[in-house]
Amino acid sequence: MSTPARRAPRAASVGGNAASGHAASGQTERLAGTSTPSRPRTRRVRGGDGARRPAYDAESLLAVAVAEFNTRGYDATSMEDLSRAAGITKSSFYHHVSGKEELLRAALARALDGLFGILDEPGARDGTALARLRHIVRRQVEVLASELPYVTLLLRVRGNTRTERWALARRREFDAVIAGLVADAAAAGEIRSRLDPGLAARLLSGTVNSLIEWYRPGRRGAATLPDDVVRAVSEGILRPA
Amino acid sequence: MSTPARRAPRAASVGGNAASGHAASGQTERLAGTSTPSRPRTRRVRGGDGARRPAYDAESLLAVAVAEFNTRGYDATSMEDLSRAAGITKSSFYHHVSGKEELLRAALARALDGLFGILDEPGARDGTALARLRHIVRRQVEVLASELPYVTLLLRVRGNTRTERWALARRREFDAVIAGLVADAAAAGEIRSRLDPGLAARLLSGTVNSLIEWYRPGRRGAATLPDDVVRAVSEGILRPA
Repeated sequence: MSTPARRAPRAASVGGNAASGHAASGQTERLAGTSTPSRPRTRRVRGGDGARRPAYDAESLLAVAVAEFNTRGYDATSMEDLSRAAGITKSSFYHHVSGKEELLRAALARALDGLFGILDEPGARDGTALARLRHIVRRQVEVLASELPYVTLLLRVRGNTRTERWALARRREFDAVIAGLVADAAAAGEIRSRLDPGLAARLLSGTVNSLIEWYRPGRRGAATLPDDVVRAVSEGILRPA
Repeated sequence: MSTPARRAPRAASVGGNAASGHAASGQTERLAGTSTPSRPRTRRVRGGDGARRPAYDAESLLAVAVAEFNTRGYDATSMEDLSRAAGITKSSFYHHVSGKEELLRAALARALDGLFGILDEPGARDGTALARLRHIVRRQVEVLASELPYVTLLLRVRGNTRTERWALARRREFDAVIAGLVADAAAAGEIRSRLDPGLAARLLSGTVNSLIEWYRPGRRGAATLPDDVVRAVSEGILRPA
């Protein structure tokens, strides 16, 4: 496709300052509600030559970009790759966004907003440390399922750019909250007593996050998955020898 | 560095046919024993201009390449990146290997040899399904720790090249063995009864594999980690509500 989709509407900017976590949170509310499954919304518009081309809003363009990042890796994905995947010209693409790092930031912010949103829920704030952890694990599975491509991208971030380092720092903040709760639970005798709390927190997050490797929407058993994961981390998977 | 390390010894080839798992197993025995921790072996040789440059054997060159692949992603790593990281010229690099996919194949074969080697051990072949699974999980943690960069690369493979698709197929073979054992254990009442065996197998592998995200050699508690992980998947991490 060599001509721009001239009548494609100008999308809302997905950009902003990549280095600010707080700013990112507000700026991406337009793009991503954590309760909304991520379905690209595209429609066709008729270009100057009469051919139909996809027209994108900011959210659907983001979905296309995230799919490319997850397939090739962020570093290996060029603006050419992105515009080819979207079926629009590179110059049309630059009409929407300043570059690929802006898309990366928006995508990572969406995943982080979803995860940090959990920590503000009453179930994550009230009750025993154990009850709060059980709530968080259950909700993490739900957010991971509803925001799968965004969380997948977040969990694969390497730290090669400023935006990636910002996302890694935010992930560490999230992990520190979990580790603090696990330490509280350990002090209250609410975790398996022979497990070091630091290791327990790592294994807890690791088990939940490993779902991105195989979970796909519509999979059999998806409805009971949050409870199943809570049960597995509470009771174990195998039986003791 | 712009001049080749002329007196660097010609390394043993790390190449071969990427599409054959069985061939790969034999070809990489020279490179990687599963019991040997992966320490690059480099020494310095004096080049034509008298400057000292690193001299590589096949194993140490592989270690350099795998570190680059894990940092940038395989797709984003060029032969220029690899030769820069090794401190030798691109033409010196091609003296050792035919290209980056040869290095990828050797690295993935090393990880796969380590993992499949576990399945041939007496502890993985004899006894109840539960006992065999416990042995495999313990040894997986050990192999993951001793072959960390190689297993990390394996677990991040996307399937964009023939070599990657071969590695993914081998991973699926390994996972199928685990899933079969979990199904046997379930039939014998040896796993948590309310967990679907397919999900149990996924969570088991996911918990073990998640170690690549945070485990680093020399970490406190490394010696007890294999037993700790077996305990966590057997007894749980949190306590039941």
